[in-house]
Amino acid sequence: MPPALATPAAELAPIPWEPAPDGCDQVVWRHSGNPVVGAWNVPGGLGIFNSAVVRFGSKFAGIFRVEKKRRFPKLHAGFSDNGLDWQIEPEPIEFATDVEPRPLNEYAYDPRVCLLDGSFYLTWCAGHNGPTIGVAYTSDFQTYHRIENSFLPFNRNGVLFPRKIDGYYWMLSRPSDDGHTPFGDIYISRSPDLVHWGGHQLVMKRGGLDQGVWWQLTKIGAGPTPIETPLGWLILYHGVMDTCKGFEYSMGAAILDLEKPWIVRYRKTDLLLAPEAEYEVTGHVDNVVFPCAALHDEQLGRLAIYYGAADTTTCVAYAELDPLLDSIVNDSIVF
Amino acid sequence: MPPALATPAAELAPIPWEPAPDGCDQVVWRHSGNPVVGAWNVPGGLGIFNSAVVRFGSKFAGIFRVEKKRRFPKLHAGFSDNGLDWQIEPEPIEFATDVEPRPLNEYAYDPRVCLLDGSFYLTWCAGHNGPTIGVAYTSDFQTYHRIENSFLPFNRNGVLFPRKIDGYYWMLSRPSDDGHTPFGDIYISRSPDLVHWGGHQLVMKRGGLDQGVWWQLTKIGAGPTPIETPLGWLILYHGVMDTCKGFEYSMGAAILDLEKPWIVRYRKTDLLLAPEAEYEVTGHVDNVVFPCAALHDEQLGRLAIYYGAADTTTCVAYAELDPLLDSIVNDSIVF
Amino acid sequence: MPPALATPAAELAPIPWEPAPDGCDQVVWRHSGNPVVGAWNVPGGLGIFNSAVVRFGSKFAGIFRVEKKRRFPKLHAGFSDNGLDWQIEPEPIEFATDVEPRPLNEYAYDPRVCLLDGSFYLTWCAGHNGPTIGVAYTSDFQTYHRIENSFLPFNRNGVLFPRKIDGYYWMLSRPSDDGHTPFGDIYISRSPDLVHWGGHQLVMKRGGLDQGVWWQLTKIGAGPTPIETPLGWLILYHGVMDTCKGFEYSMGAAILDLEKPWIVRYRKTDLLLAPEAEYEVTGHVDNVVFPCAALHDEQLGRLAIYYGAADTTTCVAYAELDPLLDSIVNDSIVF
Amino acid sequence: MPPALATPAAELAPIPWEPAPDGCDQVVWRHSGNPVVGAWNVPGGLGIFNSAVVRFGSKFAGIFRVEKKRRFPKLHAGFSDNGLDWQIEPEPIEFATDVEPRPLNEYAYDPRVCLLDGSFYLTWCAGHNGPTIGVAYTSDFQTYHRIENSFLPFNRNGVLFPRKIDGYYWMLSRPSDDGHTPFGDIYISRSPDLVHWGGHQLVMKRGGLDQGVWWQLTKIGAGPTPIETPLGWLILYHGVMDTCKGFEYSMGAAILDLEKPWIVRYRKTDLLLAPEAEYEVTGHVDNVVFPCAALHDEQLGRLAIYYGAADTTTCVAYAELDPLLDSIVNDSIVF
Amino acid sequence: MPPALATPAAELAPIPWEPAPDGCDQVVWRHSGNPVVGAWNVPGGLGIFNSAVVRFGSKFAGIFRVEKKRRFPKLHAGFSDNGLDWQIEPEPIEFATDVEPRPLNEYAYDPRVCLLDGSFYLTWCAGHNGPTIGVAYTSDFQTYHRIENSFLPFNRNGVLFPRKIDGYYWMLSRPSDDGHTPFGDIYISRSPDLVHWGGHQLVMKRGGLDQGVWWQLTKIGAGPTPIETPLGWLILYHGVMDTCKGFEYSMGAAILDLEKPWIVRYRKTDLLLAPEAEYEVTGHVDNVVFPCAALHDEQLGRLAIYYGAADTTTCVAYAELDPLLDSIVNDSIVF
Amino acid sequence: MPPALATPAAELAPIPWEPAPDGCDQVVWRHSGNPVVGAWNVPGGLGIFNSAVVRFGSKFAGIFRVEKKRRFPKLHAGFSDNGLDWQIEPEPIEFATDVEPRPLNEYAYDPRVCLLDGSFYLTWCAGHNGPTIGVAYTSDFQTYHRIENSFLPFNRNGVLFPRKIDGYYWMLSRPSDDGHTPFGDIYISRSPDLVHWGGHQLVMKRGGLDQGVWWQLTKIGAGPTPIETPLGWLILYHGVMDTCKGFEYSMGAAILDLEKPWIVRYRKTDLLLAPEAEYEVTGHVDNVVFPCAALHDEQLGRLAIYYGAADTTTCVAYAELDPLLDSIVNDSIVF
Repeated sequence: MPPALATPAAELAPIPWEPAPDGCDQVVWRHSGNPVVGAWNVPGGLGIFNSAVVRFGSKFAGIFRVEKKRRFPKLHAGFSDNGLDWQIEPEPIEFATDVEPRPLNEYAYDPRVCLLDGSFYLTWCAGHNGPTIGVAYTSDFQTYHRIENSFLPFNRNGVLFPRKIDGYYWMLSRPSDDGHTPFGDIYISRSPDLVHWGGHQLVMKRGGLDQGVWWQLTKIGAGPTPIETPLGWLILYHGVMDTCKGFEYSMGAAILDLEKPWIVRYRKTDLLLAPEAEYEVTGHVDNVVFPCAALHDEQLGRLAIYYGAADTTTCVAYAELDPLLDSIVNDSIVF
Repeated sequence: MPPALATPAAELAPIPWEPAPDGCDQVVWRHSGNPVVGAWNVPGGLGIFNSAVVRFGSKFAGIFRVEKKRRFPKLHAGFSDNGLDWQIEPEPIEFATDVEPRPLNEYAYDPRVCLLDGSFYLTWCAGHNGPTIGVAYTSDFQTYHRIENSFLPFNRNGVLFPRKIDGYYWMLSRPSDDGHTPFGDIYISRSPDLVHWGGHQLVMKRGGLDQGVWWQLTKIGAGPTPIETPLGWLILYHGVMDTCKGFEYSMGAAILDLEKPWIVRYRKTDLLLAPEAEYEVTGHVDNVVFPCAALHDEQLGRLAIYYGAADTTTCVAYAELDPLLDSIVNDSIVF
Repeated sequence: MPPALATPAAELAPIPWEPAPDGCDQVVWRHSGNPVVGAWNVPGGLGIFNSAVVRFGSKFAGIFRVEKKRRFPKLHAGFSDNGLDWQIEPEPIEFATDVEPRPLNEYAYDPRVCLLDGSFYLTWCAGHNGPTIGVAYTSDFQTYHRIENSFLPFNRNGVLFPRKIDGYYWMLSRPSDDGHTPFGDIYISRSPDLVHWGGHQLVMKRGGLDQGVWWQLTKIGAGPTPIETPLGWLILYHGVMDTCKGFEYSMGAAILDLEKPWIVRYRKTDLLLAPEAEYEVTGHVDNVVFPCAALHDEQLGRLAIYYGAADTTTCVAYAELDPLLDSIVNDSIVF
Repeated sequence: MPPALATPAAELAPIPWEPAPDGCDQVVWRHSGNPVVGAWNVPGGLGIFNSAVVRFGSKFAGIFRVEKKRRFPKLHAGFSDNGLDWQIEPEPIEFATDVEPRPLNEYAYDPRVCLLDGSFYLTWCAGHNGPTIGVAYTSDFQTYHRIENSFLPFNRNGVLFPRKIDGYYWMLSRPSDDGHTPFGDIYISRSPDLVHWGGHQLVMKRGGLDQGVWWQLTKIGAGPTPIETPLGWLILYHGVMDTCKGFEYSMGAAILDLEKPWIVRYRKTDLLLAPEAEYEVTGHVDNVVFPCAALHDEQLGRLAIYYGAADTTTCVAYAELDPLLDSIVNDSIVF
Repeated sequence: MPPALATPAAELAPIPWEPAPDGCDQVVWRHSGNPVVGAWNVPGGLGIFNSAVVRFGSKFAGIFRVEKKRRFPKLHAGFSDNGLDWQIEPEPIEFATDVEPRPLNEYAYDPRVCLLDGSFYLTWCAGHNGPTIGVAYTSDFQTYHRIENSFLPFNRNGVLFPRKIDGYYWMLSRPSDDGHTPFGDIYISRSPDLVHWGGHQLVMKRGGLDQGVWWQLTKIGAGPTPIETPLGWLILYHGVMDTCKGFEYSMGAAILDLEKPWIVRYRKTDLLLAPEAEYEVTGHVDNVVFPCAALHDEQLGRLAIYYGAADTTTCVAYAELDPLLDSIVNDSIVF
Repeated sequence: MPPALATPAAELAPIPWEPAPDGCDQVVWRHSGNPVVGAWNVPGGLGIFNSAVVRFGSKFAGIFRVEKKRRFPKLHAGFSDNGLDWQIEPEPIEFATDVEPRPLNEYAYDPRVCLLDGSFYLTWCAGHNGPTIGVAYTSDFQTYHRIENSFLPFNRNGVLFPRKIDGYYWMLSRPSDDGHTPFGDIYISRSPDLVHWGGHQLVMKRGGLDQGVWWQLTKIGAGPTPIETPLGWLILYHGVMDTCKGFEYSMGAAILDLEKPWIVRYRKTDLLLAPEAEYEVTGHVDNVVFPCAALHDEQLGRLAIYYGAADTTTCVAYAELDPLLDSIVNDSIVF
């Protein structure tokens, strides 16, 4: 079941970038043209959000959560020359598969995309009598091969690592229950073949009550593909607190050990980005910042982070890698 | 107990109208001057919403849900020359009644109005040790005669049909429980006299999970008085989905059999209008579109739909009947 | 739809009887041979409980809630010479009906039987996309004619009065929600034809907190057919309190006005019978005493009360009418 | 444990003021420059709200609820020359204390400040294995002495009276449970020494269902320090109703007996201020108006009320005392 | 408000006693004649349980939770010559009081009795718009003087220490919420006068998950008056775990510091007594062992422990003090 | 990681047996000496239940869920000559393991044992920040080697098949949430190595509402190791319904396809055994019948089924295979 090799990314596109606004004392800042993708990008759309993009040769490709007027989430492909202006396919992805006999015409949401072994792997929240992690691969964003779901229900936010570690593939995920899950921690699992998974470990728990950290008390879930750095795997994740108006989603960061990725080396106590912009505090679901992808320019040390806003639009934020890593190391409590 | 005949509506007022904006590919579009009624229409008002209007001779009359600073909902009469500029009575309707010994000085909300047998019948959510359907009639919008509540608690969204079918009066309603009801389907009941009701039938269930329809998973309730068309009774209704921020109300449509109105002929899978405008996504209760009335110009084939926005204001949307019917028939799954 | 006249009950069977045990200072006491009906009365039975019996000529007939190994409740007929030894039909009742198009092959439980206009009317909790009150009649306990359900869901414990009052038929019932209902009060409704119901009134609320009465704080529901007495309609009912182990069902009593049965004349504050016997405190559902029928010997002033015990068996208790009425009048708080 | 005497407030600063806007028919109106304090007042801030200010000699001082990027609430001091432009200390208050052995490095939110016996007393929601009322005093807003918590958990919204009554100190509070409390009433307690509390009484219950008052059905809690008037103690308080989107907080008013402050003399049925401004209906927690302080100019009969908006910013509203008192007396139902 | 001195207990009655049965390897064992008090001890009784007894001169007196047929709990006095055969007063205690204006005719349950300063102090769960701790004293078990409730609602299981410590009176209690409280820990408070309480401290939390102790995961509450021993204050308490059938109550033990009673010196991990006897596993509330009093023969080193069984009867268990203390010290984890 | 080969079971012990009692018309009947194992089998025991046994050479071995006075469940080994009289080890099993770095000193309950590839494999509900499926193997019931947990939390009732199918190992399990899970269906997963699991499929859903089957509406979970028969894999499982007193557990049966075990061939609608015996309807958790093992005498066609009763004891029931299979096939609805 090994996927075909993708064309080597010889001349990668330059990632989107804006310097920090004057006077900004934060390590993450918003793109001035937010939101960059929204309902207007497809006919009959109600929202496009919680979506993942990658550099695809000299351009960009992405997998988008699209909701039309049935409010039924599906995955659509999209393409862009500059990472900011996107053409979204009006119809959802059709997956080819040998997997039997599972019904495949189900809801699909909150995708991630990971370049792994030369193919682009999609992971998402797939319906299988309850949510679990769907997996598929593509080399061209035209045809998609779906393989087995990774876990039993009930699971969401499955995020692959971009290379093998210790001879295994690895995935972060967040097991929980059905519905608007009121709890959830980040686990890691390993696989010899991307189909059979085991060696499950708890990585990070929600919480922080004893440490004076309230923004991630309710649940946490991994976001973009982990980014390899000298300090370890940088992960951006969402943390949720429960207000008397429901859940608020913010973005945080941590660093996992490079060789033993179930060990948290640093965990930033401050959140990185809270819902404050108008497009984050109003919409289909108020007060949601939900990161799903990050483009990394290794030479310039820049990150362009893609996040869903208010379950309505897709937005971009920027960071420089070194100040971001410093801010994690210097503000870290591992709990 | 038959109500007195109303003056025949010889020269009806022309209903409000705006053509679809350029480039609009939707069958329902918003009035550019929304909201048309709000807190400012009565002294000390906090909101006027979820209200019903009718053509009343050469003018318009309506029954409005008004909330003042006790947040206690009451029904107020209102009048308009053009259907858009309204004078709302500052004090609530006083009902005359022979019904005994029920306390009648209770909350009253979410009215509908139906011209039936020459009188205007009001139905609304009435307090009777729990919500149920109150009924009253008027011929002049000055004096109102209240008759028996139609059902036992717990019931809401009672909507009368505008004529007898098979010798009976018919009403749609949504039995459920007390509180912020987390479930509810549309039923139909018949009556020989508008007082005694029986022959209850389930018409439409909430749901759509298996059909890829998520916007009405939690509950549904009828909206305007059904509109008779060659295809059947057109009903506009609200569908509710549960987000992690609470309920979101959108508007949908279906067509019931003309002679056997408990049979759904067509049920549009796409919603017609989701909360997207600023006055729909913020207010007393965010993300609510709640239709309660529709004016029908039979000659021009036009509809002016009145809906509550965010439990704060009253708004108008427009549709042309034929394209609307087409869009229901062509996008129908009866489940 | 009027049912055929039943054979006049010329020589009625003597009802079961045991005098109060020595030293008993209670107005209601248990039959020494309890339980009188149980799982052993049908092949493959798990329980027979919450059932109703009547005098049927010189013998006795009854409608029994039977649960076999699917735990799916159905109504079975039963017959007895003495009211204590019963032959229960092994198969459930099949109803003939003209009612359309409602599915009739549903669950059926907690029956009551009422001799009314010369026919025996059955009412029970019928499944109709949620529980409601099913109605049928028989003159011979061989064939049964089912008519329309009386109410919209969600309703249980429908109990008919044994004669017309003020030209109408009357029924007590307990509207509530779906599931293990955590609340419920007794209402009354009237009907000209046993099909169309209106004029709904609240009769008795659960509660008693302010009166120092805790056994009926959670919900109440009518039991046997009301018994006409000079003081009014005697009703026996179940009251439920919520313990940290779930609901406990006890038996209480009240007296309604003869001509205006929505008026409570007396309401006994003490319960009449709490679960204390071994067959009441253990079984399928612990701590349940659930009265459904009472045989009344008018000449001797005796009552034989049939109640379900622990959702497992059917039991009998006795009372003398006059002391029972006295105990209600002398221990009454109407709340 | 009596605190040191504060410097007498010889020349008090004039309180902020704006007359009512033209055409305003309300007794309370918003400051035109709202919000006056917010996240921008401290580095790394996410919100500053639900805060209390006092006149402090010729200037103003305040205790502010500040949330930074851990979303962990702390109390910060702030100072202002005019009551509208504020300098907020970037670091939280450190309390000196002899109290042992309780951990004092906990969350702290929703402060009130009361000038009592010549010192400024702070009360707030303090973490003590659940929320309870923390108490401290200061004379200079530089050093703070913390004394014993007043009550067992679970309690919030502790508000001191500004003088002894009948030889005792008195405090309003709202006992309830942990979490997003779904119920709560206002109680009063007395103390000989500000440490030991007893004589607890219920003052005001949430509710109003029977009186047609819905805005305070879920819970209520005292706001600013009670203001002594000839009619009694004026209290402003928050009332909460539960919508299908969660809790909405509005401001109301009542008057307590001067000598027996557990007796409610008047209770205004209309709310005084509902969330309607843009900064009240969007933010971290939508639809919150939460009063915590009121400056009273006794000579001019003016009030400047400080309230938190949407758990995000601090705002000001104005009232003239006499019309406010009149509106309470004339619109009062004591329930 | 100091209560009158009681007659010195010159010749105390010998406490009930049975040696451990042959082969018993437990430190606590049941009385062979259990239950010793039950419904039969009062006319019309349904249960007598969760009650407290003391040595009263040469006899025994007790305060009993009695439920009659209203299921409304009240406190009744009782007397015994040998501590096993009891005469229970048929009517509840009437309290004299100067406390105003609190309604005193409320529910009352789960009493404790403590000989303190020569008077017998009763504490119990008193209704005051929610449960809280009622306090009264008597010297003769004939007249009872009620003083102020100790705390705000919501509180239960108030247990006084039998002497002053460090010049103060001390009480254990369990603050929680209303209803069938799903959580609760033991706190301690101090008072100079038994009316005003402060200095609140957490003593022991429920739990034990990390220690492999499941029987007290849900809530805990103090039982008998603490017993002074050389090792510290011996407290017996109930611990509750939540099964899929509701709460199960068992008995456990701990030892508090003599001078600083908020410090737990030892806490036995094993429970002492779980519901296993037939009278403990069936009844009004299954699976409840609820200790409320312990008689201590200091010369013989014996304890007779009184506990409620299944919210139905009162039972006795025995222990020898030294083996009991040893078993606590040797099986202790303080968490 | 392949386990060492077990000694071939040359001379297997005869399984326990009693013929059906006279007049029994059921296919499963109880052992007359029930319960066979209980608290008395270990010092300080409170219960031994939900346990699994196997034939072990000429004797029997078992893995038992033991709860002592901490109510913390652990697995203990036990041995028996005849399968009815058991010696239970007083201390829990210590597992050797190479798995890192997971804490292994956690709760362990509801074991199953499966002879597979010549070793005995234990599966059980293991604590891993939430319940999941622990796996270990032994060849001698003296030393136990623990391998990786099979799945992410939250999972229970993991049951291995006794041989490979299509080259894979297979396991049934019941994913759900934490706590007293209110829902749960049976899934199947496959593995190449007993460590990495994939190919997850839904096998059987709880339910039966539409089929008139109520005893398994809430959740279901596999019980003994599947038994290979000519008709397919016979599985015995528990089904749970929710009463107003909590969950009731009964035993049911189904037959899965031999080659494609995710396909249900037959599913018996009647339950096989409901809680009716005294030791099933009272105890730590009332009304529980929970099968965990079945001994199969292939030559005589007999089954001895081991099940937990009331979360207190371990009991035995008997069946003959052919009548049992017939009763499944003849009473089957696959839903």
